[in-house]
Amino acid sequence: MIVGIGIDIVEIPRFEATISRQPAMIDRLFTAREQLTDEGHRRTATSLAARFAAKEAVAKALGAPQGMQWHHCEVVGESSGRPHLYLSGTVQEQAAAQGVTSWHLSLSHDGDLAVAYVIAEAN
Amino acid sequence: MIVGIGIDIVEIPRFEATISRQPAMIDRLFTAREQLTDEGHRRTATSLAARFAAKEAVAKALGAPQGMQWHHCEVVGESSGRPHLYLSGTVQEQAAAQGVTSWHLSLSHDGDLAVAYVIAEAN
Amino acid sequence: MIVGIGIDIVEIPRFEATISRQPAMIDRLFTAREQLTDEGHRRTATSLAARFAAKEAVAKALGAPQGMQWHHCEVVGESSGRPHLYLSGTVQEQAAAQGVTSWHLSLSHDGDLAVAYVIAEAN
Repeated sequence: MIVGIGIDIVEIPRFEATISRQPAMIDRLFTAREQLTDEGHRRTATSLAARFAAKEAVAKALGAPQGMQWHHCEVVGESSGRPHLYLSGTVQEQAAAQGVTSWHLSLSHDGDLAVAYVIAEAN
Repeated sequence: MIVGIGIDIVEIPRFEATISRQPAMIDRLFTAREQLTDEGHRRTATSLAARFAAKEAVAKALGAPQGMQWHHCEVVGESSGRPHLYLSGTVQEQAAAQGVTSWHLSLSHDGDLAVAYVIAEAN
Repeated sequence: MIVGIGIDIVEIPRFEATISRQPAMIDRLFTAREQLTDEGHRRTATSLAARFAAKEAVAKALGAPQGMQWHHCEVVGESSGRPHLYLSGTVQEQAAAQGVTSWHLSLSHDGDLAVAYVIAEAN
């Protein structure tokens, strides 16, 4: 059974301009481990934009309730195969309250656009 | 069990140009309540483009059968949380014939692009 | 139960430039029947771009394992209703190993962008 779905698209140049103007947003949106690749390099704006879209898509799949924190929805493991979500705190509580038992996530980007698509499932 | 899925993307400037040239299309595509926000303002071209994408995505999820009417697939409630679908007449009949018991819908737009993604589920 | 999901977006002008520079890519990516419409015309770059996105989305839904061949994931039947996937060889083996019993696919394009979205389901 599907609990909710979410899609989000992000225009990369616009996202990049925003985080250039307000670099503190990066720490507000992304945890320390999300900001680095598996090889330890800082993620590109494109990679961050796709991850931001994933967080928005998760919020939509849960009905965009109040009080969820960006750091409580982490996107991990993209470079080696499927990206997946690591939820904690406020986001995990919402997901549990709605009966979500598994999450599915896919990311894509090309040219100026990043997109994330999410399904929250209850088994 | 998933009966069908649909995705649709709409270039907002192109959609806006079309409804500007042929304003009668707005009434043909959208019901009176779809054309207004919850606050009673006329929806922007961006918001209508996302709703148009949703209607196309629903048609795709049902296999794009003949004879479905635009007004029989309404997108409601976007501003307060999850948007959802209100089906009637020709579209509801198709959905019932295919055993659809629930619909999931997510919308997004950024820059020039609107996207809708739909899952038709049978429980 | 959902085994995996995939989304892929393709900037059509970029894809078109690539296959113009390297026309051998067309045969490498697409089987003979995928290159033609039901009416026997060569597919446009837009139509091929959407199909390429579908193949990428299928690979993502399976976790992008090594060794899958492009020709083993064909997109057929788009013009008359729902497009669907015809899997064989390396891709079918992966899908079977992961327990996939049905596939859902939707394609869209507008302006410069093509998108494909896929769900792999186990019943």
